[in-house]
Amino acid sequence: MLLNSINDPADLRRLPRHQLKPLAEELRGFVLDSVSKTGGHLSSNLGTVELTIALHYVFNTPDDRIVWDVGHQTYPHKILTGRRDRMSTLRQQDGISGFPRRVESKYDTFGTAHSSTSISAALGMALGAKSQGSDRHAIAVIGDGAMTAGMAFEALNNAGVYDDVNLLVILNDNDMSISPPVGALNRYLARLMSGKFYAKARDVGKSVLPGPVLELAKRLEEHAKGMIVPATMFEEFGFNYIGPIDGHDLDSLIPTLQNLKNLKGPQFLHVVTKKGQGYKLAEADPVLYHGPGKFNPSEGIKPSSGGKLTYTQVFGEWLCDMAAADGRLAGITPAMREGSGMVGFEKKFPDRYYDVGIAEQHAVTFAGGLACEGMKPVVAIYSTFLQRAYDQLIHDVALQNLDVTFALDRAGLVGADGATHAGNYDLAFLRCIPNMAVLAASDEDECRKMLSTAYQYEGPAAVRYPRGAGIGATVEKTLDVLPWGRGEIRRQGRSIAILAFGTMVAPALGAGEKLNATVANMRFIKPLDVELVRQLAESHDALVTVEEGCIMGGAGAAVSEALAAAGIAKPILHLGLPDRFIDHGDAGQLLAQCGLDAAGIAESIVQRFGKDEPRLVVNNG
Amino acid sequence: MLLNSINDPADLRRLPRHQLKPLAEELRGFVLDSVSKTGGHLSSNLGTVELTIALHYVFNTPDDRIVWDVGHQTYPHKILTGRRDRMSTLRQQDGISGFPRRVESKYDTFGTAHSSTSISAALGMALGAKSQGSDRHAIAVIGDGAMTAGMAFEALNNAGVYDDVNLLVILNDNDMSISPPVGALNRYLARLMSGKFYAKARDVGKSVLPGPVLELAKRLEEHAKGMIVPATMFEEFGFNYIGPIDGHDLDSLIPTLQNLKNLKGPQFLHVVTKKGQGYKLAEADPVLYHGPGKFNPSEGIKPSSGGKLTYTQVFGEWLCDMAAADGRLAGITPAMREGSGMVGFEKKFPDRYYDVGIAEQHAVTFAGGLACEGMKPVVAIYSTFLQRAYDQLIHDVALQNLDVTFALDRAGLVGADGATHAGNYDLAFLRCIPNMAVLAASDEDECRKMLSTAYQYEGPAAVRYPRGAGIGATVEKTLDVLPWGRGEIRRQGRSIAILAFGTMVAPALGAGEKLNATVANMRFIKPLDVELVRQLAESHDALVTVEEGCIMGGAGAAVSEALAAAGIAKPILHLGLPDRFIDHGDAGQLLAQCGLDAAGIAESIVQRFGKDEPRLVVNNG
Repeated sequence: MLLNSINDPADLRRLPRHQLKPLAEELRGFVLDSVSKTGGHLSSNLGTVELTIALHYVFNTPDDRIVWDVGHQTYPHKILTGRRDRMSTLRQQDGISGFPRRVESKYDTFGTAHSSTSISAALGMALGAKSQGSDRHAIAVIGDGAMTAGMAFEALNNAGVYDDVNLLVILNDNDMSISPPVGALNRYLARLMSGKFYAKARDVGKSVLPGPVLELAKRLEEHAKGMIVPATMFEEFGFNYIGPIDGHDLDSLIPTLQNLKNLKGPQFLHVVTKKGQGYKLAEADPVLYHGPGKFNPSEGIKPSSGGKLTYTQVFGEWLCDMAAADGRLAGITPAMREGSGMVGFEKKFPDRYYDVGIAEQHAVTFAGGLACEGMKPVVAIYSTFLQRAYDQLIHDVALQNLDVTFALDRAGLVGADGATHAGNYDLAFLRCIPNMAVLAASDEDECRKMLSTAYQYEGPAAVRYPRGAGIGATVEKTLDVLPWGRGEIRRQGRSIAILAFGTMVAPALGAGEKLNATVANMRFIKPLDVELVRQLAESHDALVTVEEGCIMGGAGAAVSEALAAAGIAKPILHLGLPDRFIDHGDAGQLLAQCGLDAAGIAESIVQRFGKDEPRLVVNNG
Repeated sequence: MLLNSINDPADLRRLPRHQLKPLAEELRGFVLDSVSKTGGHLSSNLGTVELTIALHYVFNTPDDRIVWDVGHQTYPHKILTGRRDRMSTLRQQDGISGFPRRVESKYDTFGTAHSSTSISAALGMALGAKSQGSDRHAIAVIGDGAMTAGMAFEALNNAGVYDDVNLLVILNDNDMSISPPVGALNRYLARLMSGKFYAKARDVGKSVLPGPVLELAKRLEEHAKGMIVPATMFEEFGFNYIGPIDGHDLDSLIPTLQNLKNLKGPQFLHVVTKKGQGYKLAEADPVLYHGPGKFNPSEGIKPSSGGKLTYTQVFGEWLCDMAAADGRLAGITPAMREGSGMVGFEKKFPDRYYDVGIAEQHAVTFAGGLACEGMKPVVAIYSTFLQRAYDQLIHDVALQNLDVTFALDRAGLVGADGATHAGNYDLAFLRCIPNMAVLAASDEDECRKMLSTAYQYEGPAAVRYPRGAGIGATVEKTLDVLPWGRGEIRRQGRSIAILAFGTMVAPALGAGEKLNATVANMRFIKPLDVELVRQLAESHDALVTVEEGCIMGGAGAAVSEALAAAGIAKPILHLGLPDRFIDHGDAGQLLAQCGLDAAGIAESIVQRFGKDEPRLVVNNG
């Protein structure tokens, strides 16, 4: 095995060119084998095998910086940069991450996971190097999906004016984001590819010219073309555009990269790859093989045997049912049709389905525009991605009190995807916004009722629910709503009242049993059920709040604020996620480690308030 | 006066064409006269006089929707839509807003102020109309500066695929955002304008052709051009591009708009205007006349006679001094060189000055990239605009604990700009982020020291300070730092301890005098001085927190969390901004109305805790 001899890219660079192709074969096989055993991202990694080899072969990594956009396509990169043996620990607690991380390897120059950050980061690195008199290269590798996000354009717009920066942007065009591609840019890229022949002719010309002559030729060409010869959009942005070239052909990739390495100023290489390349089943269905669990490579992924309904499915069904009942409903996703459970909705209601591309900012303001015309938009978005549309939520939706419903999937810890994808901050960053309503679902049935409740509320409202399956509650197929702003007491105990939010209701009930504590399902973070808070404070010795979210500014803080506003000084314990980023691992285990299972909640309560029928041991200042 | 007869656009539409030009003259005079008396935005409004007339003349407003991007150019629009007489109340409390607002007029179809939202909103409206079988038009008017923000591209990318939507995007190209234009897009637009002659020939052809023939001609043209005839970037995005045309020439504007009105699918009109048009002084210096105070139009703006140093100036001076002392410092602004006080820095340190365009997302991740290379970036950004880079702050900077300093100007209430620009949420949305440090300046001298403190801290840190001048503290020209995470007691009193943050220290001291209360200047919101909180709790009967920011999740909540974590149950009163959006008006008056002056703070304390030497009257549950 060639692969076994590659412990870092310097080893790779010592190989003769003719060994790279067999190496690519081995690497592809290793990726497939490895992912089939651990689960993880597959299609995208099969697509970047040759590009990864070529980049590390041509550039002097880690001194030259590669920034991988989104980063879920970096398994070949990890394997070639000394982490081959650790691929078996991928996405597991204390194992390596599914994304690049600066703390994991010096070859991971910038942590990525959310899309479209790479050009900004690489430009910063390139200008930082320039400031320090270094001529190292900074390279951003970005997919065609990620290219649709505005942030990528902001970076192109900024980069294009630096004539002497060592920046290379590689567009890895595989005609697929996680959902199938949408938007005008993808149509444009398809046109560029259809003009391949013309483009190739120009590039070949460029490729064979030595640096200075090439520069001159370029200037002459630019001068000559004026308004006559077509420039690509990327050239309009000030980049030198090369491509498209075949991203699986090392004999195209390596000489092209070698030439680009010698050019000054912003360079743009358009590479065409195929997601799933080399594994027929993934080539045929790259969406299915985007992020599979474990599977047998010779058999492929088997249809799953049902299992518990996920919250995502609960949302998807509710969306269809509510759309059938109300012609004003419009469903919006920023390029997460599958992840957000909207495949069925698109099929049934294509005219009211809007996949706006990877464009969270636009998604939210677009929803605002729809709401102005009397539509009732539902934006399906992961908690972590709503962070990308925070200003649009405040400035465009909440300030105008527009009637937009937010279905916040992946709230709280998300497990294998780790800190980058965790939805831990939404309660804090949402509840401070005037006019917003914020609800957290404690089970699947309540999730559906909360979606209806938020939908019927004539203003901005968000319902948060976690990744994956819930407790297995039976979901009533109604469109009934819950009483607005009201929690409920789920268990009557004494002395201690646990005020639980969302997913923490179930473990709180467990803790309540152990301690004979009262347990309330608060349901609303905003408007908080202040009357219930007051009543629980008056009838108990101490309050405990529990939430799957940051303690700082979260639901527990809301309860403390309500107590302060009511002039009640009462011992209170806030339980929730600690003030640190939490790495990947099994979500249930991570929650337990944070003390957010039944045993942990009980233990924290006992630790604070004393044993058994807890008595109050409070330092009253 | 023609203008006096125009009480709504229907009146305008009844005018014969030849009266529009004299009307434009009157309108321009009215704008100049009005703004010179009230202060407000001038240059941009002088530039949109003819465009506003033409739009309301050709389109059937308010049934057709006009969305004005940024919205500070809508004075002509306000004057023509029934608010002529209220222009004297502009930007004053209970007067009309300096921006479009849905609650103010049915002609203000979408509230704007932050840039680059208009295409998203208009597309939502257009598709909403389509869903409802209406053929009304939606029109976004967006400047060339606003066009650089990624969100505008996200919207173009999405809009370009809807072949049958009644959407018109008008690029109001005046070659100027608030700061002079930067970035590749502006270079591109300049090239488009240099190709004006060619473009004009095409448009004239289009203008004289009746609808169906025009459509046919368009299709033929598209077919013919293939990869040979150049398409503008906007055509690549799927828009029908017309222009550039002279935006001050009603004889170009009106027929062009009339033609565009009859075309289906996304239309793009490139209009060239001049900021300050018709007022020589503003034409010569549109930046100076961007947002002046009151002035005499015949004399122009007089150099101001000094006055107190603004916080913005304190920042600008600190930035230069720190840059002189530390070669690693890089200064970044998202197109707010003047507003952020960076004119001097750019002059002295052009190589370390980065104006990235209106691109907050990019600005923050770009700073992260610089930090990776050992630079020490300082991002100067208004509190309200940091909302636009929230995910980048979490995912790209804080998660990697990168050393980026944020200078948060315009924190708290901003006065005349109103709710859209208020920086009321930063304490809540920042302190929930792990690794972040958050400081609030109580006076100018402390602001400088805090900037040095945050800068020397090797991780992400934000210093917030308000708009305008402070209390007039003498600023020591040192680069000394403050003790990390420590507040200070400013006044020793008894019974009540007021924990004041940032700008609230001064009025809290006033209230402390009245009530003989202890007053602490907390300085740090995060890391909070927990030891000081504990000490104050132990030595007083009750605590009061005061901040110029939302109570929900803010600094007061942080104090309550600290008490809860320490097991201290203590009467506490949270003072801060209420949970509603606060309209424009004098910032000092608005603060007083929110009870955040010395008298208000004292009154709230007395109301809660009793009179004179306050005694505790607390409902203890």
